[in-house]
Amino acid sequence: MTINKNTKFLIVGLGLLGGSYARGLTGKGYYVEALVDNEEAKEYALEHGMVKKVSTEVDADMIREADIIIFTLYPDTFVNWIEKNGSLIKPGTIITDVTGVKGCIVDKIQKMLPPMVEFISAHPMAGKETSGVANSDERIFYGMNYLVVPTERNTDEGIEACKRIGEILGFGRISEISPENHDKMIGFVSQLTHCIAVALMNCYEHASLERYTADSFRDLTRIAKINEKMWSELFLANKDALLGEMELFQEQLSKMHDYLKADDRQGLMDMMIVSTERRKLFDK
Amino acid sequence: MTINKNTKFLIVGLGLLGGSYARGLTGKGYYVEALVDNEEAKEYALEHGMVKKVSTEVDADMIREADIIIFTLYPDTFVNWIEKNGSLIKPGTIITDVTGVKGCIVDKIQKMLPPMVEFISAHPMAGKETSGVANSDERIFYGMNYLVVPTERNTDEGIEACKRIGEILGFGRISEISPENHDKMIGFVSQLTHCIAVALMNCYEHASLERYTADSFRDLTRIAKINEKMWSELFLANKDALLGEMELFQEQLSKMHDYLKADDRQGLMDMMIVSTERRKLFDK
Repeated sequence: MTINKNTKFLIVGLGLLGGSYARGLTGKGYYVEALVDNEEAKEYALEHGMVKKVSTEVDADMIREADIIIFTLYPDTFVNWIEKNGSLIKPGTIITDVTGVKGCIVDKIQKMLPPMVEFISAHPMAGKETSGVANSDERIFYGMNYLVVPTERNTDEGIEACKRIGEILGFGRISEISPENHDKMIGFVSQLTHCIAVALMNCYEHASLERYTADSFRDLTRIAKINEKMWSELFLANKDALLGEMELFQEQLSKMHDYLKADDRQGLMDMMIVSTERRKLFDK
Repeated sequence: MTINKNTKFLIVGLGLLGGSYARGLTGKGYYVEALVDNEEAKEYALEHGMVKKVSTEVDADMIREADIIIFTLYPDTFVNWIEKNGSLIKPGTIITDVTGVKGCIVDKIQKMLPPMVEFISAHPMAGKETSGVANSDERIFYGMNYLVVPTERNTDEGIEACKRIGEILGFGRISEISPENHDKMIGFVSQLTHCIAVALMNCYEHASLERYTADSFRDLTRIAKINEKMWSELFLANKDALLGEMELFQEQLSKMHDYLKADDRQGLMDMMIVSTERRKLFDK
């Protein structure tokens, strides 16, 4: 499928990401409609010219007319939606998503879809600590990483179309990764880091820390303002991988703890030297 | 002591912080000399107009003529220097520092000094992931937190002079804290966060993470490029407090681990809600 100005995009869900996709695609001159579950989001989107048409219903005509459907629902909601409404999607349609975990949904959804409907999963590695359509902003994608997550069921064409969406939205780097590796990687670079920030903030009550903090503490806790519904669902959906990553990290931290307890300065320095070498490898 | 353009500052050590202090004070028109331990630093400082005079020796005249001496040596080196050379400091001189831990040095050094020499300790909560005089930059202090760490031996005059230095250098907020509370706080907001970054970087070898990372991982590991000599010494100098903070953090992270393992979504959400509330309290 070649994406052009005649392509009809349908975005299901206009929260932070859905809204940002809408702004991005509409802003680049593409035709975008949306399905939402509340009147406020519908009015906001229309008032701000984010989409050409919105419905708060599961509008069968809008679904049937779409060429590309982008789902921005939480994992469980996404699976339920496809179970209930997947048959409304016409052959030849490509569907994609922004979901933060893949193992528990991609295979399941691909199996549920009608023939000739291709689900090519994606993960835009971008966001904000706030949620909701009013906070959406197409600029959060600029220069960021965009992951395409194909399975054996996906076609080159579907993969290309999915990548094209990333290009249109202004992502800086577009990569492919399998669902299994995606979940392991996400468990480490995204979910574990959020666990760490939350654990840090749960240590102490007092707020006077701001008199004493340096940038290091602010950096580590920027992501401590966390959408608890979304993230708890993502953690549980990626439970095994995330537990594995947490345990790996806890091991390394325990190593440092034990070196310190044993006055083993060399042990501490060795870990620090490794850290410095590896971190240099990915300066932006 | 009122600080004015006749005040003679002597900085002992011209690394990242010493160099930044030199640039800051000289830049504001104050008179600054320095003692260093290598020719390269001496030449660099003179070439760049950072100080009016430098010696690679423990120059007794320079020490005697100083009104305020700012020590930027690592803790052990600082204590040894005072042990060997403290008697060269004339009565009425104020000495201060930038050392990252207080409990193990402030009392010790105050006891070693000649009468009428006051050590008023300070901690500029600023820095860079690099070291050395060539990386020094007075702008790293602008708007940051500056801590004055007085003991019973300190006078109001000494404390005011120390605060004044912070004002001259452009710090945003100047606070007082006891040595004991300083070390606990530093153990948590600065040392523990560095342990976390180092532990994260020690988890995996492969460098291809940069294809997949989002800002959360970069944020948490910005401080993973770490000066191993300085930080291992600081950790060991603050061993008991840091072990306590590490154990507190490990407890909170284990709580999250166990909620996840038990599929306890509410438990996870409760911790996330606490995190969000507390983090809001210290947005810059």
